[in-house]
Amino acid sequence: MRVLGIDPGLTRCGVGVVEGEVGRPLRLVDVGVIRTPTGESTPQRLVHLERAIDAWLEEHRPQAVAVEQVFARSAVSTVMGTAQASGIAMVCAARRGLPVALHTPSEVKAAVSGNGRADKAQVGLMVTRILRLDAAPKPADAADALALAITHIWRGGARRRIEEALEKAGR
Amino acid sequence: MRVLGIDPGLTRCGVGVVEGEVGRPLRLVDVGVIRTPTGESTPQRLVHLERAIDAWLEEHRPQAVAVEQVFARSAVSTVMGTAQASGIAMVCAARRGLPVALHTPSEVKAAVSGNGRADKAQVGLMVTRILRLDAAPKPADAADALALAITHIWRGGARRRIEEALEKAGR
Repeated sequence: MRVLGIDPGLTRCGVGVVEGEVGRPLRLVDVGVIRTPTGESTPQRLVHLERAIDAWLEEHRPQAVAVEQVFARSAVSTVMGTAQASGIAMVCAARRGLPVALHTPSEVKAAVSGNGRADKAQVGLMVTRILRLDAAPKPADAADALALAITHIWRGGARRRIEEALEKAGR
Repeated sequence: MRVLGIDPGLTRCGVGVVEGEVGRPLRLVDVGVIRTPTGESTPQRLVHLERAIDAWLEEHRPQAVAVEQVFARSAVSTVMGTAQASGIAMVCAARRGLPVALHTPSEVKAAVSGNGRADKAQVGLMVTRILRLDAAPKPADAADALALAITHIWRGGARRRIEEALEKAGR
């Protein structure tokens, strides 16, 4: 299974593609950060972001897209831009008929490190180990995007196994 | 000048097209509400919204789009959906090279009623009078979209007049 993880943002949007199955080593396909010009208007920046995400989908042809769930509770001034960027990410994927899953930051932290309150450094370290990289992907948004993709493969795999077990038990 | 006003939302997105110039009676071109199925996932709903907004742009060919500015300060659970919907509205317009303006709710209320704290009923009443309608457009989201378009025409017109006056004074 090939998954594109997206850590949405207007200034920096992390994107990472991971391939693999539960119980087997996962493989990094590509990772990067989409930046949009801070001097431009939000609508223009969203158009940049849309084109860049479309290019990633076109190039890597993932089977699913995992997007970080944005919450309103943070009073940070960037939260609206992040929410708008996440809307663009979702629409780009859904338009192509791809399944889109939203994972919360604590789900992702728990999945890759076993601790829902892990810090950025811990997440980066675990992503590095899981994908057998030489160094943690920089910036943190890139590592977060990979962590999202890893979470999606693992959680999806676990769900499939449970469903298979239930089906077997039902027979 | 023809302006499409958009009051973004996932459950109800108000859309209203107004035509006219400052100092002359404005004309209602079309008004409506885009609804997306509550039972569907957010990515699917955003795709519905995108298609519907694109259809409005295609049919009415506005010269500018005015979108209500969304703020994070409200703790309402719908604010993220509203922000995502506003992102879609902006991207649909910007992709076509149309200028997009964001107006705050109090700017809109002040422009149409003279009172930045006017309630929904007052805004509906003023929209009805300004566009010489028989009754206030329903639901409130539809009236709000028209109020946004009216605000945009009036504010833009005022700005142009000031610029012209300054230019004349400079000569």
